[in-house]
Amino acid sequence: MNIKEAYNWLSNNSKEIARLGAIIELAAWDQRTCAPEKSHGNRANQIALLSKIAHSKGVDKKTKDALDVLKNNDFSGLDDSLAGANVKVWLREYERSSKISADLNEKLALTSANGEAAWESGMKNGDFSGFYPVLKELIDLTREKAESIGYKNEPYDALVDEYEPGITTSDLDTLFCGIADPIKDLVLKISDKSSDLLNYNHDCSFDIEAQKSFSRQIVDAIGYDLAAGRIDEAVHPFTVGIGPGDVRITTRYNPDNLSTGIFGSIHEAGHAMYEQGLHEKAYGTPAGSYASLGVHESQSRLWENMVGRSEGFWQWAFPIARGYFDCLQKVSSEEFLSTINRVSPGLIRVEADEVTYNLHVLIRFEIERELFRNNINVEDIEALWNEKMQKYLGVKPANLKEGAMQDVHWSAGMFGYFPTYTLGNIYSAQLFKAAESELGSLDKMFSEGIFKPLLGWLNKNIHTHGAIYGSSGLIEKATSNPVSSKYFIDYLKSKYSNF
Amino acid sequence: MNIKEAYNWLSNNSKEIARLGAIIELAAWDQRTCAPEKSHGNRANQIALLSKIAHSKGVDKKTKDALDVLKNNDFSGLDDSLAGANVKVWLREYERSSKISADLNEKLALTSANGEAAWESGMKNGDFSGFYPVLKELIDLTREKAESIGYKNEPYDALVDEYEPGITTSDLDTLFCGIADPIKDLVLKISDKSSDLLNYNHDCSFDIEAQKSFSRQIVDAIGYDLAAGRIDEAVHPFTVGIGPGDVRITTRYNPDNLSTGIFGSIHEAGHAMYEQGLHEKAYGTPAGSYASLGVHESQSRLWENMVGRSEGFWQWAFPIARGYFDCLQKVSSEEFLSTINRVSPGLIRVEADEVTYNLHVLIRFEIERELFRNNINVEDIEALWNEKMQKYLGVKPANLKEGAMQDVHWSAGMFGYFPTYTLGNIYSAQLFKAAESELGSLDKMFSEGIFKPLLGWLNKNIHTHGAIYGSSGLIEKATSNPVSSKYFIDYLKSKYSNF
Repeated sequence: MNIKEAYNWLSNNSKEIARLGAIIELAAWDQRTCAPEKSHGNRANQIALLSKIAHSKGVDKKTKDALDVLKNNDFSGLDDSLAGANVKVWLREYERSSKISADLNEKLALTSANGEAAWESGMKNGDFSGFYPVLKELIDLTREKAESIGYKNEPYDALVDEYEPGITTSDLDTLFCGIADPIKDLVLKISDKSSDLLNYNHDCSFDIEAQKSFSRQIVDAIGYDLAAGRIDEAVHPFTVGIGPGDVRITTRYNPDNLSTGIFGSIHEAGHAMYEQGLHEKAYGTPAGSYASLGVHESQSRLWENMVGRSEGFWQWAFPIARGYFDCLQKVSSEEFLSTINRVSPGLIRVEADEVTYNLHVLIRFEIERELFRNNINVEDIEALWNEKMQKYLGVKPANLKEGAMQDVHWSAGMFGYFPTYTLGNIYSAQLFKAAESELGSLDKMFSEGIFKPLLGWLNKNIHTHGAIYGSSGLIEKATSNPVSSKYFIDYLKSKYSNF
Repeated sequence: MNIKEAYNWLSNNSKEIARLGAIIELAAWDQRTCAPEKSHGNRANQIALLSKIAHSKGVDKKTKDALDVLKNNDFSGLDDSLAGANVKVWLREYERSSKISADLNEKLALTSANGEAAWESGMKNGDFSGFYPVLKELIDLTREKAESIGYKNEPYDALVDEYEPGITTSDLDTLFCGIADPIKDLVLKISDKSSDLLNYNHDCSFDIEAQKSFSRQIVDAIGYDLAAGRIDEAVHPFTVGIGPGDVRITTRYNPDNLSTGIFGSIHEAGHAMYEQGLHEKAYGTPAGSYASLGVHESQSRLWENMVGRSEGFWQWAFPIARGYFDCLQKVSSEEFLSTINRVSPGLIRVEADEVTYNLHVLIRFEIERELFRNNINVEDIEALWNEKMQKYLGVKPANLKEGAMQDVHWSAGMFGYFPTYTLGNIYSAQLFKAAESELGSLDKMFSEGIFKPLLGWLNKNIHTHGAIYGSSGLIEKATSNPVSSKYFIDYLKSKYSNF
């Protein structure tokens, strides 16, 4: 193989792996939105097979040969200015994948696909005794995975690196350290006051069909391309990228609380606009892939919170909402705004406000870290969880469903994923500040229903760069500053100083 | 490899190919029911990739080695009484697949996936100038495929053999010869009379939501397991088997004509009950796969026509229908029955009655045969089509949309598929007669809403045997008679002697 052949082979292989990944996403989307109940075992086998094929493509001997050809070259002979960046990511991915045996990979895929069904039935009937053995197996397999991959200081490093390439447990310790105390202080300060506020939700009921139309109008207005996507309902909302021209979101609606549906929709639309903004021609290569889950989450949180919960946004959107929901006629825009920004420690992460949210993540991070330091086991999770909830948030779960087993992630074998939620928050504040300093007052634009400048800025500074700069490199390039949690803390302090 | 290893390897490989096929079905289902408009190019690439992987598994060198080990053995050492039958089918499939190059296979998959979109836009705007070049390419590729595979007498043999293993063009000539003239006579005789009949549809409108509930109740009652399936709407109704526990049907509803929705649903449910009745443990091997498309169609046509259009069925179902549709109160059951069995030559195959239907198929068969004898080309289809429509059915299409381009099949590269529709009709009459002679009056059972004995008979005599007897072998085994078109002609004559 010469350089050109090697590069073309890797590009093509990378695209095929991406396509297989996209089909796995389709299969998972279908399982959560459409598939009949008796299909689950069969679906797990299908996903495991696709995962096996994708893995074997990634560790193909020809991949190694091609990478060997390219490793020490300057790529100047190639007709692709991003060749060097692509090769760097491929090398990293190969290093990682080739250490996981085909057998372990398939076991993980199959157990994860089955785990979700076991967890779901636990959530249905409140009894997790059927899920615990699967969870135990998933943790064992994941420990084995971490040992296979290797790590700098501790096994958990190998896990977070999958979702946020380059980051370590110790980096996360530092970041959480920078936000935990200021947030705890803020929570104490705000929740004292916010308990006095009115809550319009108490007196209203929101028709589901009207909520669907309203959410659709809003995500369309902020820039989610519905001709390249669709909106469905799911118990646990998520976004899937099924390839160019097909990025779907799901949401759920609560007749008693407008926030669930509208902020769920805006959040997922934020994710989706990231994928819709990726460089289509580079699809399947690092230059056309998302940078990390943290960066992904920065997009969803930015749209959900910095845009969707802002005063300007509701100056524009509140009259629209009133057109859909009669009962909002008797609610003042002030009351509405204070309700959607209410800070109140609770039990459920996905229902948490933007301040306490990160304490929920912190608890999960600390428990995962202990799990993979082999300091605790499945049986110890519940007690530790409840202790931390009490300590950080002052609340106590009555059972596993509203406690340690509330999230889907572990059932799908996704350990090391939670910290990316807080990284997303941190990045989002830093990005929003940089965008505003370049574009001028965003709140004013939102109040006029103008979102294109912000989306354009994110397209240009984040989306089109794909994964070639890594997450911290990308944030630094976009904001001209190294990643820091101070922007997020500043944002929270400034926003909630009014409360 | 010893015998056992070879057999296990082939079984496992066969299951993986079936799973990939099932995922292709999922992707196609999604494209027709859910996928956003901008996704089509991407989806075509995904399907082409899966098809490439499945094809390469089928022609893997290890497949050949394993088949060589097993070819001349008696399988008595294997713990599977169906081993011999499975190996026979695998050998046949390998012979076929290995002659099609990977390149041709991928080209066909990609062109077919794109063809459907081009055809659909032709159907939308009535202009097929964008579709003709794709159709031309598909025919050229299919000619190449037929030449690669080889054939006994003519290229079309290689094509029909894909859908109805073992059948030849000359067999089809004989079968069509046996039904064409009796049907033409019958049409002349009946349509004279049926033009005087009333049509309740003229005075009624049928609420779509009520139609959905009605169809759902009916297909549930006849035995379609909705916990292992689902019903969606599609412009061109179809059934997909996405693996055990997941066989979905689609249908469409016409507010002005109840027949479209209810018979479409029963037809597809007939297909689906076949797949739901396959031997789950043998999934992915010939013993757990459908026998042929002709046998598949025999199940759908049997339920649609012999059950769904029978007098007994509507003695039970008409009161149910009246509960859904007020306007049926003023319709007599006699009028209803005569409307749903009306025979009237028309332009559109999917709307044709059960008598004229086979003339529509005959026209397609004759045109395909000429195409692959290289006697005509794409440009000649329209004139020949119109000439035959006039000759066989006495009607003339005003344009391609209601004429030669009305069907989706060619756009998906499915040449040689149409004759299986008539084979299905022929098989269905033969099966129904055999079932009735064993079970007693089926019409009486239907009038009481009892369908389990018939479904059980089909399960036992057709479904659980999978593909191990071939289609004609299976029909012969189930009915103790060789395949013959006389049962179908007898059925039509006896049914329509009252008209």
